[in-house]
Amino acid sequence: MDLDALLVPLRATCAAMPPLAAMQLSLQRFDGERLHVGAPLSANVNDKGTAFGGSLSGLMTIAGWGLATLKLQQAGFDAEVYVADSTVRYRAPLLHDLQAEAWLDPDTRWDEFIETFRRRGKARAQVLAQVLLPEGGVAAELSGRYVALAKG
Amino acid sequence: MDLDALLVPLRATCAAMPPLAAMQLSLQRFDGERLHVGAPLSANVNDKGTAFGGSLSGLMTIAGWGLATLKLQQAGFDAEVYVADSTVRYRAPLLHDLQAEAWLDPDTRWDEFIETFRRRGKARAQVLAQVLLPEGGVAAELSGRYVALAKG
Repeated sequence: MDLDALLVPLRATCAAMPPLAAMQLSLQRFDGERLHVGAPLSANVNDKGTAFGGSLSGLMTIAGWGLATLKLQQAGFDAEVYVADSTVRYRAPLLHDLQAEAWLDPDTRWDEFIETFRRRGKARAQVLAQVLLPEGGVAAELSGRYVALAKG
Repeated sequence: MDLDALLVPLRATCAAMPPLAAMQLSLQRFDGERLHVGAPLSANVNDKGTAFGGSLSGLMTIAGWGLATLKLQQAGFDAEVYVADSTVRYRAPLLHDLQAEAWLDPDTRWDEFIETFRRRGKARAQVLAQVLLPEGGVAAELSGRYVALAKG
C-alpha cells in the first residue's frame, strides 16, 4: 500500500479544521508505524518566545489521532477516531519549530486493535507521542487513549 | 483589590500570543478563586463539527496558567508561570462555544503556594479546570501542575 497516498485525504481533513489551519500543522510522513507532524514556532509561540503548551499538546494529540486513523485506513476501515484522555509532560522549553511523532504504546498491538474494531465496530488504542528538541531530547511527551467508532 | 483591573494586562499578554489569538480566546471573569475563559466553536471546530480536543485542552491549560498568574499578582508578585504536566479527560462532544473555568485543587492552598514562592522564588500549584456543556455536565476536564518562577 502506498503510505504517502493515505496521507492525502487526511491532510485535506486537517486543512479544513480552523484550529489546525491556524497552527499551520502539517502531516509530514507516515512509515507504517510512526506519524510525523510539524508546525512552525511563529504560529505557536507563547509570551516567553517558546512553544505554547497548548500547541505542543495539540500537535501531539493530532499526531496520535492521525496515527490511529491511518492504521484503520491501512486495514480498509473508515472510522471516526476520538481522543478519550491524555497525559502530557512538558519537559523543556522549545525555541524552534515544533516537530512531533506518534507511535503505538509498545505494550499493545495494532493487530488486536484492528481485530477488535472488525468484530465490535469499536476499539481503543493507547498511543505515545513526543515533541523533540532539535539539540536532542524531548520538549514534551503525551500518552493518549483513542477510541475508534465505525462510521454511521 | 480590583480583580477586573488584574485581567487587563493578562488579556494583552494573551492577545499577543498567535495561537490564543487564533483560538479567539477571551479571559472573561476572575472572582478571586475562579478564572472563566471562553472561545467560539467556529475557530475551534474539528472535522466532526464538535470542539477540537486540542482546543479544549489548550483553553483549560490557559485557564490554569492565568489563574496561577493572577493569584501571584494579587499577592504582589510578577512571576513566570509554566505548565509542567496535565491530565485531560474528554467526556462528551461539545457542539457549542467553549466555556472553561479553572480553580485550585481543593487538596492544596493558595496561601502555602504564595508563601513558598515568597521564600524560594519558586512554587508549584495543582489546578483543576473544566469545559462545561451548556445543557449541564462536563465536556472535558483537566488537572494540571503549574510551576511559578520569580522573573529575572
